[in-house]
Amino acid sequence: MKAKREALISLFTAMNDGKVDADIIDLLLLVNSINGVYTTSSCSGRIGVMEEPAFGAKPLARWLIKVHREMSFEEMREALGKAEKGLLFLKSQPPIFHVVAEDLGRARKVHELGLASGFKYTTFKAIGTRYLIEINGTEYLTAPLGRDGEILVDDTYLRFALDIGNSMLRRSKGRLPRLFENFRRLRNELGEDELFHELREEYGV
Amino acid sequence: MKAKREALISLFTAMNDGKVDADIIDLLLLVNSINGVYTTSSCSGRIGVMEEPAFGAKPLARWLIKVHREMSFEEMREALGKAEKGLLFLKSQPPIFHVVAEDLGRARKVHELGLASGFKYTTFKAIGTRYLIEINGTEYLTAPLGRDGEILVDDTYLRFALDIGNSMLRRSKGRLPRLFENFRRLRNELGEDELFHELREEYGV
Repeated sequence: MKAKREALISLFTAMNDGKVDADIIDLLLLVNSINGVYTTSSCSGRIGVMEEPAFGAKPLARWLIKVHREMSFEEMREALGKAEKGLLFLKSQPPIFHVVAEDLGRARKVHELGLASGFKYTTFKAIGTRYLIEINGTEYLTAPLGRDGEILVDDTYLRFALDIGNSMLRRSKGRLPRLFENFRRLRNELGEDELFHELREEYGV
Repeated sequence: MKAKREALISLFTAMNDGKVDADIIDLLLLVNSINGVYTTSSCSGRIGVMEEPAFGAKPLARWLIKVHREMSFEEMREALGKAEKGLLFLKSQPPIFHVVAEDLGRARKVHELGLASGFKYTTFKAIGTRYLIEINGTEYLTAPLGRDGEILVDDTYLRFALDIGNSMLRRSKGRLPRLFENFRRLRNELGEDELFHELREEYGV
């Protein structure tokens, strides 16, 4: 697991490269500015069409389309046209944040904060001397659509399933302001991190 | 969170009432026989059809069918005939075990054991002075099928989606023997619990 300096450099570099989901940049900056707390990988929530060449062969899976906002029917239809081999799924996934806490007291606070913000799958793991908290929602959709390039449902169904997927995404992203507010309070309690400000200036973000 | 005595009494009572999934009874007995470790709620993995009256209204959701083994096409078809109001989903869910460890050392061992047994969503939470480890797989299927009693897919699709759901269930349950073997090793390491044997005799299970 990365130490905070390394994690901050990764984050600022990714931001400079435009690789961080725009709707969670402020939140990531806030979390990383807290003393003894930082983020590793995160995702602002997404929806898309995935093709899995063989059942359960996740490493070989590829996104035919993946967006961090609601997906339109036309976008989904176009992506389905690219299907070749394997199982096709419509997937909707809530925001997910991996937060490292440098001691058990902080870990418990972040864990409770995630749950209190409505992210009901928030859990944590002890790794070495640090703690990894995963802040995660429950809104997962995995709808099979077809196989080997063949779509086994009609457009009425596709619109129906897409509508559910988009609703789940909207609902889960709707919790981000509350999460932000709760991290703001945690920063007031734990204080700011000088390293964050030094490196932020250095990387010009 | 229940203390061990209370948890054991719940388990033995549920076993006497025939309310514990048969394919995980041996595993639950094994885990609870370990010193400083016990289970709260568990499920051996299931597949079924769920009706949610309103989007996201989980507390009001009801299973039209739910089985802890593979589901047949006829069973699914019959269940769909009972649909009335709300969204219909085919759901497949892997085994899930909630294990309490009485100290952080044990919690880390159980956590690592879950991961090493192939349950990749194994996580833990600190609750008071104890630790709750959730041993969980990744094989979740949530396929929307229709709305307000209307099925929006044909039988070809239903068979296709059911086949995926059953495969996921088979795969996730297929890890139970490895989990059992790993808990057997942990018992050798941590020793047996006298309270378990006393209460087991008392409840005659």
